[in-house]
Amino acid sequence: MARSTSSSSSGTSNSPNISHPLRRTPSMLSIDSQLTLVGSEGIAHAQSSYGLDADKPSYYVEHERSMHERMEAYVLDLQDKLVTALESLDPTQKFERDRWEREDGKGYGISCVLQDGQALEKAGVNVSVISGTLTAGQLKSMRDRSAQTAQRLSASEQYDFRVAGISVVVHPRNPYAPTAHMNYRRFEVYRQGAAEGEGPVMAWFGGGADLTPAYLFDDDVRHFHQTLKTACDTHDATYYPRFKEWCDRYFTNVHRKETRGVGGIFFDDLDDKKPELLFRFAYDAGSAFIDAYVPLIARRMATPYGQQQRDWQLIRRGHYVEFNLVYDRGTKFGLMTPGARIESILMSLPLTARWEYMNEPARGSPEDRLLQSVRSITEWTK
Amino acid sequence: MARSTSSSSSGTSNSPNISHPLRRTPSMLSIDSQLTLVGSEGIAHAQSSYGLDADKPSYYVEHERSMHERMEAYVLDLQDKLVTALESLDPTQKFERDRWEREDGKGYGISCVLQDGQALEKAGVNVSVISGTLTAGQLKSMRDRSAQTAQRLSASEQYDFRVAGISVVVHPRNPYAPTAHMNYRRFEVYRQGAAEGEGPVMAWFGGGADLTPAYLFDDDVRHFHQTLKTACDTHDATYYPRFKEWCDRYFTNVHRKETRGVGGIFFDDLDDKKPELLFRFAYDAGSAFIDAYVPLIARRMATPYGQQQRDWQLIRRGHYVEFNLVYDRGTKFGLMTPGARIESILMSLPLTARWEYMNEPARGSPEDRLLQSVRSITEWTK
Repeated sequence: MARSTSSSSSGTSNSPNISHPLRRTPSMLSIDSQLTLVGSEGIAHAQSSYGLDADKPSYYVEHERSMHERMEAYVLDLQDKLVTALESLDPTQKFERDRWEREDGKGYGISCVLQDGQALEKAGVNVSVISGTLTAGQLKSMRDRSAQTAQRLSASEQYDFRVAGISVVVHPRNPYAPTAHMNYRRFEVYRQGAAEGEGPVMAWFGGGADLTPAYLFDDDVRHFHQTLKTACDTHDATYYPRFKEWCDRYFTNVHRKETRGVGGIFFDDLDDKKPELLFRFAYDAGSAFIDAYVPLIARRMATPYGQQQRDWQLIRRGHYVEFNLVYDRGTKFGLMTPGARIESILMSLPLTARWEYMNEPARGSPEDRLLQSVRSITEWTK
Repeated sequence: MARSTSSSSSGTSNSPNISHPLRRTPSMLSIDSQLTLVGSEGIAHAQSSYGLDADKPSYYVEHERSMHERMEAYVLDLQDKLVTALESLDPTQKFERDRWEREDGKGYGISCVLQDGQALEKAGVNVSVISGTLTAGQLKSMRDRSAQTAQRLSASEQYDFRVAGISVVVHPRNPYAPTAHMNYRRFEVYRQGAAEGEGPVMAWFGGGADLTPAYLFDDDVRHFHQTLKTACDTHDATYYPRFKEWCDRYFTNVHRKETRGVGGIFFDDLDDKKPELLFRFAYDAGSAFIDAYVPLIARRMATPYGQQQRDWQLIRRGHYVEFNLVYDRGTKFGLMTPGARIESILMSLPLTARWEYMNEPARGSPEDRLLQSVRSITEWTK
């Protein structure tokens, strides 16, 4: 594959009017400096900053750069903002930042991970920008999952792909503070040997955010859903209901007849509008996650709890592990990718989990209330 | 499927000379009484006991009963012996016994589970005797895995199956005492609508035992392998080397380039000899597990340890969970089986597990020594 996978020089040198992709507030400077230290090409041009529109970063409307490069800029920016927001919950907790490169040169990532913090037991905010050739297994599973894809991608041809994405999982320590997951990515598939400048055969956006509490607080769940719905509604009134239903369906531990949590939004293979519009939607929905989720941790992180609540939280985390290892498409794709960085893929797993045989909460208990909520579907917005 | 799935009346009433399938020593009486209480048909004839050959139970050589019924008798017997041996490690720990029936009447099981004991943190010794119709997915995955099976089972026909098996996982509390897994089963596939008395289209034995230490003690591993090898060698000198290699290959966390543990023996689809000979082999190999494994717990369960050893043990258990949920055929088959008893299938998961991002033991440490042993293959017998 001839095209570059970084947002590097081509983006900045060919487009002198383009301001840097990582728009920041002063409080993010410490993260900047650490990220700059790791020596990413995609981050080096953070120095060449220009004035920006008050509400949106330059890449939101920047047409000169490829969609892949703008997606890369967006996910790096969102990573930055989210890490700052999560670190602000507790002054003692700091994310560890690793920049890694694939050995074959076909991609890099920045993993921000926090473990054993006071507010957060484990949190990962991971960006990856990867290219490669679709393996036969990956091509097959793509063709299997949609008739449209099967039509556009031939089983007998070879394809390259590139993807830029952000993947987030936060497991707070306090059992009353919910776990959440968020991920946004843009996936492009190219004919192998495509000429420079030839567009992708297919490209789509995927992503979403979902909440997994161990204890149910209706207000928290409503806030989470409503914030995401508001972000969706400015783009398409059908998005929230469609993606809410998709989320409930996707995040299901089929063998337990339970959803993983209380849902949120989820979509994949999204290419029903111009990429420009979808990108803006992905930006707004991804950005809304911070307001949808971080206040919930702040609200619950100091609530007193005992061993019973802790054990229940760990049991629910066991179910979380089951979903991620048995069903999750992103995890499976990652584990099937030769040379993949396992530590980043499995970053989503909690620090601790528990499997008790035949654990059954007493009827009407708070634990049972959670169980009832994952065994049925609730509408959380008006 | 017309045939009965229990070893019940047909076995005893048609074969008056056949003694009961559960041969016991006096120390097992307490288990007997509990098992009898649960009201299994397969256990009811425990009352009609006859004299037995000193070394082998009646079902070892009993030709009048079907192989399926003899397998059922064997796995119930082995469950009994193993539970007794494990309970003898610590007088305060007792297994909880559940007998369950499938709602559709197509099978039953007896789950013996111990949780939070002093010697054992979690242990499950599970028997199941199940029949049903192969789902399209199950048939496909059977046909995919062997050319011979693909030849014998048509993709367009419907098949019934019945299986009797025992499945064992023991997670001791002390990090120096290894986890072990054992399982033996006989699987039969019938043409749907087969006449009473028509034999199976295919039938095979599968099983094995493997050891998963968090810390490596060469003597322990050698004892485990040597005991299994001795049992294999009395049947076929090629079995141990073949099944040892199979075990190393099968119990691999491909994504981590690690074996799950230090191996043992594993085989599946075994029908290279007369069922009579294979049954005796399965009996001897399964029985050898008790001597191969239980003394290792006894030897290590009182060794002092600290938080570092405990954390490392839980990290290794995390990898155990990964193998079981991502790769294990039995687990996948179970999760795909409509109406399956999830609690019994996932009984194999440890009580607690841990995922630390980028955990890397210091070179030359005892933890590193274990890592080296699961990243290469060792011959443990002479």
